[in-house]
Amino acid sequence: MICDLAIIGAGPAGAQAAFTAAALGLKTVLVEQAFSGGACLNSGCIPTKFLLGGSAAVPLFAAQKKTGVLSGEISVNLSGLQDRKERYIKGLRSALEKRLTEAGVLYMRGRAAFTGAHGLELVLSQGGTEQVEFKKCVIATGSVPAFFPGLKPDGAHVISSSGLLNLRETPASLIIIGGGVIGLELGEFFARLGSRITVIEAMERIALSEDAELGVALHRQLTREGWDIKTGCKVQSTRSLEDGALVTLADNGEELRASKVMLAMGRAPARDMGWDKAGIKTTQRGWIITGPYLEAASDIYAVGDINGRVLLAHAAEHQGEYAARRAAGLEEAPYDDAAMPACVYGHYEIMHVGPRQEELLRIGEAEGQQMEFSRVQMAANPIAQGSGFSQGMIKIGWLGGRVHSVAAWGHGAAHLLSLATVMVKQRWSAPEIIFAHPTLDEALKNALTAERLRV
Amino acid sequence: MICDLAIIGAGPAGAQAAFTAAALGLKTVLVEQAFSGGACLNSGCIPTKFLLGGSAAVPLFAAQKKTGVLSGEISVNLSGLQDRKERYIKGLRSALEKRLTEAGVLYMRGRAAFTGAHGLELVLSQGGTEQVEFKKCVIATGSVPAFFPGLKPDGAHVISSSGLLNLRETPASLIIIGGGVIGLELGEFFARLGSRITVIEAMERIALSEDAELGVALHRQLTREGWDIKTGCKVQSTRSLEDGALVTLADNGEELRASKVMLAMGRAPARDMGWDKAGIKTTQRGWIITGPYLEAASDIYAVGDINGRVLLAHAAEHQGEYAARRAAGLEEAPYDDAAMPACVYGHYEIMHVGPRQEELLRIGEAEGQQMEFSRVQMAANPIAQGSGFSQGMIKIGWLGGRVHSVAAWGHGAAHLLSLATVMVKQRWSAPEIIFAHPTLDEALKNALTAERLRV
Repeated sequence: MICDLAIIGAGPAGAQAAFTAAALGLKTVLVEQAFSGGACLNSGCIPTKFLLGGSAAVPLFAAQKKTGVLSGEISVNLSGLQDRKERYIKGLRSALEKRLTEAGVLYMRGRAAFTGAHGLELVLSQGGTEQVEFKKCVIATGSVPAFFPGLKPDGAHVISSSGLLNLRETPASLIIIGGGVIGLELGEFFARLGSRITVIEAMERIALSEDAELGVALHRQLTREGWDIKTGCKVQSTRSLEDGALVTLADNGEELRASKVMLAMGRAPARDMGWDKAGIKTTQRGWIITGPYLEAASDIYAVGDINGRVLLAHAAEHQGEYAARRAAGLEEAPYDDAAMPACVYGHYEIMHVGPRQEELLRIGEAEGQQMEFSRVQMAANPIAQGSGFSQGMIKIGWLGGRVHSVAAWGHGAAHLLSLATVMVKQRWSAPEIIFAHPTLDEALKNALTAERLRV
Repeated sequence: MICDLAIIGAGPAGAQAAFTAAALGLKTVLVEQAFSGGACLNSGCIPTKFLLGGSAAVPLFAAQKKTGVLSGEISVNLSGLQDRKERYIKGLRSALEKRLTEAGVLYMRGRAAFTGAHGLELVLSQGGTEQVEFKKCVIATGSVPAFFPGLKPDGAHVISSSGLLNLRETPASLIIIGGGVIGLELGEFFARLGSRITVIEAMERIALSEDAELGVALHRQLTREGWDIKTGCKVQSTRSLEDGALVTLADNGEELRASKVMLAMGRAPARDMGWDKAGIKTTQRGWIITGPYLEAASDIYAVGDINGRVLLAHAAEHQGEYAARRAAGLEEAPYDDAAMPACVYGHYEIMHVGPRQEELLRIGEAEGQQMEFSRVQMAANPIAQGSGFSQGMIKIGWLGGRVHSVAAWGHGAAHLLSLATVMVKQRWSAPEIIFAHPTLDEALKNALTAERLRV
């Protein structure tokens, strides 16, 4: 088979590349070895948000029960929620495949391997093989959970995030190894169900990709709510017992027990598909090395998680679209992903867009501009007060009197993300719109006009 | 007393004018006859949102109880919520007055009346009078509920929105006369408490200030949820019975009974303060007539509700700021309030920014540009699906391939308002930022790229 563009992997990056390429008239082949939609749809963002969405009443109720405004009891039917989640995801997969086909993309199920600089062999799921000769190729094979010796799911009580996402009985206690977005969001969900949550993070703080000051504040809040969070704490091994799991800490050999242990220690690149046959290079850990145009080799692009740049679904989509347009000859400029938003969902959320503090300082020094921060407490916002969740803060990073970063934590903080992205991308220096009153968004307005400090 | 700027009314318009003027170095006097913060803080936006915020768990719980995901019972302690609301509002009033004083504003309690083109007499709350000679004046006296003969609160079961806002027992049934923002938001709150809600609207539809197509869809949704909504239905009279209230309809004399009747038939201008002494003109209904610079007479501005332009707190603030800057000689251009956001809160919300359809058509015809609309169903958004509230729609109005209006209804639609305001103000033609995935905001992204139709 001959095509203009061969795309490997039908996750957010690959699917977006396929839609874009087909719309531009390229003969496009998309091959997927597992499920369309990738980790995002099948074992990541979407199922997590569906579980959080379905149980969103629980923390709202708990907060106002504490104030005496609400009374009663709520419980979550986990199995019922899982049924709905599975139906929803299955429906989204079918819809995605239908849309791909309708868009003119040739969608195939199978495992791909490079045979050369312009060739792939597909081992088809339906049986047989297919040789593909492509003019251009987009690799969008994504990532998988990272495991380590002694720290692997064991089919019993030590499980991956996928395992936890599909649990149908609430564990009385849950140890989460890794305090990143996956650990925090799934911890939130099981806390709502009543699980006792312990988070063990090897680095010095949770939510490491977020602003340090805000991450520490979120840590404190979760601790107040009963989470046991151990930072700077390494795990030596995990293993299942008859009725639970055991975690042994590296430093002192201390043993912790829980009903379940989830391993969420980051992501690793998807398998090698014969990269060397096409002249593709990887880092030592296996991430594909890309240039300024996301190129991995001549006529070959690597987009999404597999290039190890930004492991976020919307970054993957954005790269996928760029690569398809570049393959079609439409993009001259290097790939630009400034103003990339990111967030962690929950009843308290944390988000950021733009460089983090240490990076901002570096940019400021390089450009000879003073770094400043303005801060606003969420408690000053009437919508935050009304919700019963008044903790949180917005923090804007400024260089030369222009917004360069926005970070926030608080109830509904993820809702501020798009406007914050506009503020960063357009380098606002003041509120540029009329903000409706009262809205949570007014906290951003107030942060724009608040005093700016040099720390 | 001599001052640079005398401001009458310490609601959103007057307070903002005062902060702005004081920051610009004007000697500023602010006089308020009742409570600082105006209708917004004391009997409008803020108490309503506090009640809605405190009870937000109720509809979330109800929606997921219906799906079988949640079980249990919730009830609202109305009296406890009212205590918290009153404390909160009292605290905000004190904080506002403190901030005004700290900003250098002379804040006085009393009733003002014009004595001439540059003079006011204040009858002070503390006793005595004060003559004020001003260089410039800002009138920001706001509005009051509009009542009519036979349609007035009677101190018993026929009440105003302020009366309903302060109720401490849940009425078994509630008839709301007027299906605008006040009626809908307070109806939402009492529906959460279990009141049977009837809305009677004289005009052809509820939410008259919102997009007609979306307003009709919201009407249908509320009806599905058990609201009885009568549009195009005029009320002849209301009166209290021993144990409830009676509404007599105008057309057929039909009588409706309920525990309480709330009158929410719009707003009327605040009292005349001797407008003619200062050469200020009003419409027949009493709204102050203003020119392109919000001027009501030479050296006198009228801002906020009292000028009858846009009865919204953030519009009032925006006008107050403009007038203070204009009074300080800083604004040359006429007042511009394009891209004014507005919304109605609830578990389903409705919002818009930019001109409504009929106005957009007029603009398009005047400018020779074809009007187009793109639409996206909220059901296509994973956050909407996860919440259990999948109804709703976003509708973008285009002229010449540029966004001129955004309207939406759905769960969390008010969260889309600020970004929509940016899209309208900046006349986006495509998504200009990277949208985080998954977010409700992606529905706006999809509406930006959806097919555009000529109806």
